[in-house]
Amino acid sequence: MLSPFVGQALISTDVAVLGVHLDESLFPLEDLGFKAVASAVSDLAAMGGRPRGAVIAVSSPPGTDLEELHRGIADAAVITSCPIVGGDLTRGRDVSVAVTVFGECPDKGAVLRSGARPGEKILVTGPLGRSAAGLRRRRAGASLTDELVVAHRRPWPRLAEGVAARGAGVSAMMDLSDGVGIDLHRLADASHVGFELWEIPVAEGATLDEAIGGGEDYELLMVTPDVDRLMMVFADRGLRLPREIGVVVADVTRRTLRGEAFERRGWQHQL
Amino acid sequence: MLSPFVGQALISTDVAVLGVHLDESLFPLEDLGFKAVASAVSDLAAMGGRPRGAVIAVSSPPGTDLEELHRGIADAAVITSCPIVGGDLTRGRDVSVAVTVFGECPDKGAVLRSGARPGEKILVTGPLGRSAAGLRRRRAGASLTDELVVAHRRPWPRLAEGVAARGAGVSAMMDLSDGVGIDLHRLADASHVGFELWEIPVAEGATLDEAIGGGEDYELLMVTPDVDRLMMVFADRGLRLPREIGVVVADVTRRTLRGEAFERRGWQHQL
Repeated sequence: MLSPFVGQALISTDVAVLGVHLDESLFPLEDLGFKAVASAVSDLAAMGGRPRGAVIAVSSPPGTDLEELHRGIADAAVITSCPIVGGDLTRGRDVSVAVTVFGECPDKGAVLRSGARPGEKILVTGPLGRSAAGLRRRRAGASLTDELVVAHRRPWPRLAEGVAARGAGVSAMMDLSDGVGIDLHRLADASHVGFELWEIPVAEGATLDEAIGGGEDYELLMVTPDVDRLMMVFADRGLRLPREIGVVVADVTRRTLRGEAFERRGWQHQL
Repeated sequence: MLSPFVGQALISTDVAVLGVHLDESLFPLEDLGFKAVASAVSDLAAMGGRPRGAVIAVSSPPGTDLEELHRGIADAAVITSCPIVGGDLTRGRDVSVAVTVFGECPDKGAVLRSGARPGEKILVTGPLGRSAAGLRRRRAGASLTDELVVAHRRPWPRLAEGVAARGAGVSAMMDLSDGVGIDLHRLADASHVGFELWEIPVAEGATLDEAIGGGEDYELLMVTPDVDRLMMVFADRGLRLPREIGVVVADVTRRTLRGEAFERRGWQHQL
């Protein structure tokens, strides 16, 4: 049980499966737990909400190191201030972690991806491609504590940024879980608009391909009629200033990066 | 998003895995979806709550008939008035369905399993063993539409009964998901009490073993200081009258059925 919710209640669910969302030959099992929680919490961040708690349903074969899995879950719960309030545990052949996070939007309603209007500016909370670059580096032998590898292992939901953006009146928002190359199209589809991009900010150590098509960065994509206000609110709260990357246009078929067609491409889960 | 919750917010999660919770050689895949939702909703019924919605996280191998799975999920959502408001879908080797139901208790707080006090009476909402008997009958060749087989395939969360019991002031409650032979011990452990049973109501077509050790009946186990009031409230609402099966005692080590030791035994999931 929980005390009454404040304002609008939010809920999000995510399932992470070992071998699909995490390569167990490269990463410890705890990363699966961490990423499952972080991914679900990030959905709330993208609505400008804050988490109140989460429940976890785990299935795993006998012999699975559940303590290690739970360590990753607990780490993510701590950094996102999202207490784990319940769960279920059963046997299965896969190790799978289903996380359901519930939360609230205290003042105004949640921000959706469907509210973008022509003329508004498109911004992101940070440079992209860190997670994909970390995965590439790990495959090439980098240590688990390499900075980009850590970015892949420990994605950081942009909760403070989401709340700030909601307060600053953004019209649409989503988290970049599958890469801007597919997620921006989703936002544009939901808002029935097109876009013109002038840059994709590439993280240090990442390639442009990784910045566009790599998933799991969990930076926020924001659309606003008032960039100055957004910048001011971020600055006031001591948050890294977002980067303006483009503009929303009315023509739903117009989707460009520096005048060239910006094709839909992004990360897809593979078995 | 959801409109604000009324009163206390409740949440429950359950995961069902094909081959663990459902034998696919005997039952259609839709039953896995139905049972996953029904089981999670039943947890809310056991607190006297009512569902507001659910999210579903499915993992499955390529080629899985997701439409069939979703048909079972949708059937359960309809009969429990619990709309599916979101979900996540990914690949895995197992077919697994993680259901998270959230709900509310409108007036008073949720009923826990820890509130039973010595002298109070123990009741159940119906005779037991139907689900286990249905599984046995199906294994012996009974049709999918056999009444007891249907009881196994389509467990019915006791939502109306749970709300009625909460209104009638029960002190403790839980749903019989693993069988009274283990669940009553859990309630007694949580309440730091013992019990003396005078009967286990056995469903027509079931054995005493099935009534005690069979899981998935989802009848409610209720403890109350005022049996007459409970009966009256159930009668007023047109609900089947519960059966009084025993009394709570202070001695936590005393756990008997007709004077004999009532051992802890119940259904355990097996791969």
